[in-house]
Amino acid sequence: MSDTTLHPQSHPSHDQAGDCGCVDTHHHDSMAGLSTPADSTPSATHGYLGTKTKYQTALRRIEGQVRGLQRMVDEEKYCIDVLTQISAVTGALQKVALGMLEEHLSHCVVRAAQAGGEEAQLKVQEASDAIARLVRS
Amino acid sequence: MSDTTLHPQSHPSHDQAGDCGCVDTHHHDSMAGLSTPADSTPSATHGYLGTKTKYQTALRRIEGQVRGLQRMVDEEKYCIDVLTQISAVTGALQKVALGMLEEHLSHCVVRAAQAGGEEAQLKVQEASDAIARLVRS
Amino acid sequence: MSDTTLHPQSHPSHDQAGDCGCVDTHHHDSMAGLSTPADSTPSATHGYLGTKTKYQTALRRIEGQVRGLQRMVDEEKYCIDVLTQISAVTGALQKVALGMLEEHLSHCVVRAAQAGGEEAQLKVQEASDAIARLVRS
Amino acid sequence: MSDTTLHPQSHPSHDQAGDCGCVDTHHHDSMAGLSTPADSTPSATHGYLGTKTKYQTALRRIEGQVRGLQRMVDEEKYCIDVLTQISAVTGALQKVALGMLEEHLSHCVVRAAQAGGEEAQLKVQEASDAIARLVRS
Repeated sequence: MSDTTLHPQSHPSHDQAGDCGCVDTHHHDSMAGLSTPADSTPSATHGYLGTKTKYQTALRRIEGQVRGLQRMVDEEKYCIDVLTQISAVTGALQKVALGMLEEHLSHCVVRAAQAGGEEAQLKVQEASDAIARLVRS
Repeated sequence: MSDTTLHPQSHPSHDQAGDCGCVDTHHHDSMAGLSTPADSTPSATHGYLGTKTKYQTALRRIEGQVRGLQRMVDEEKYCIDVLTQISAVTGALQKVALGMLEEHLSHCVVRAAQAGGEEAQLKVQEASDAIARLVRS
Repeated sequence: MSDTTLHPQSHPSHDQAGDCGCVDTHHHDSMAGLSTPADSTPSATHGYLGTKTKYQTALRRIEGQVRGLQRMVDEEKYCIDVLTQISAVTGALQKVALGMLEEHLSHCVVRAAQAGGEEAQLKVQEASDAIARLVRS
Repeated sequence: MSDTTLHPQSHPSHDQAGDCGCVDTHHHDSMAGLSTPADSTPSATHGYLGTKTKYQTALRRIEGQVRGLQRMVDEEKYCIDVLTQISAVTGALQKVALGMLEEHLSHCVVRAAQAGGEEAQLKVQEASDAIARLVRS
């Protein structure tokens, strides 16, 4: 959340190993996965990173919708119309979350399972907690 | 959604009757907002308008959270952390929606009921549809 | 929940005044409402009571679905199929809840508003709390 | 979750491959359950089957709650109280769903991932669809 500060030290490791940042959290070796054993090119895409642009676009659109909500309140629009717009934003956020979750299962969880060890169960637990938060939010 | 266009002609009806536009169902230009240069009667209360600042603050915070999400994706943060943040934003939006809905029921629906006629049923129908969208989103 | 035990003391008041049981909770006078000043016949329908059969039918169907779920687990059906069925039951319950809420707003809340006094705000508060529980459940 | 409890009456096909039917996506007769009297190997673990009793108990309790709802409507209880009870049932169903989903990820998806091939991606896709239904229901 620390704004626009660059994190030059964190990206490189991503480029070398990462999948949706799994690399930053726990398992490193498991990330090697099926693929790209000599994945060193900085342009390599990883995890949700292959679809990073899709999420960036969606989130910019959502930001625009939230600003639209602010204008609606500023201009004292009818509450029901504001509520309709809030439902639209919530739906858009859920869509991002569901897409990201699917990619997480597809990349991180599957890879952890393939790597063996208890990492897979940790990943499943973690994903399940995230799903519970989504269902209840 | 009609953006930043001012509606200078609109407020009077608010002052006389309205609560978040409940004057009638299809809130016309009366909603205008921001400006209200000659918004005279100080005692007039207007639906969520009494708590407008609260919503403006919450929505600005939500906008910040959405920008935080963008940064998280830009910086390739771990998916589970992005999902946690999405749940937080969704929860914050729901809180705004529930607050606004309560004020809508409290002002617009109650007033329509008191005014009599079929307006009350239209308001109830409209609110129920909004509730259904919230529950399902 | 005490099963088939009769509540001889509670029904009569329903017959005389009630609307979806509002009568049992708080306001009595407000229940008289627009209508039926001499509503004394035991067959009088009230509040959601006009659509009571609809809810009874829906809830019996939901009970059947829950028993279907038990059979699925007994017979060790595939988890994803069980989950699909759970989503169906949840959706059916939400439909009952949304229908009942709309009737509650339409009858109890509108009537309380018309009766005046602070009862209306109590009803709105109570309905809003119920909506929040639905949205979050 | 692997629980060593035997299910002598249940498994054959399960013992050979499956976990909650993940043997293949379109669980055929192998799911049959109840029947399958000559279930041999004791070491087999079976998806949610280790915790089958937990789900059976929860679903019986939910059935009781749904019958309680029927009685509430029969006895014309206050709508808000019915709504509160509906939220409780919905919450209980979601809890069953989340538990079952976690076990599904933990067993079926992880196993499919370990088995390799495109089965893992099919499982992830299928689980993601189920999650989307839960989030939206």
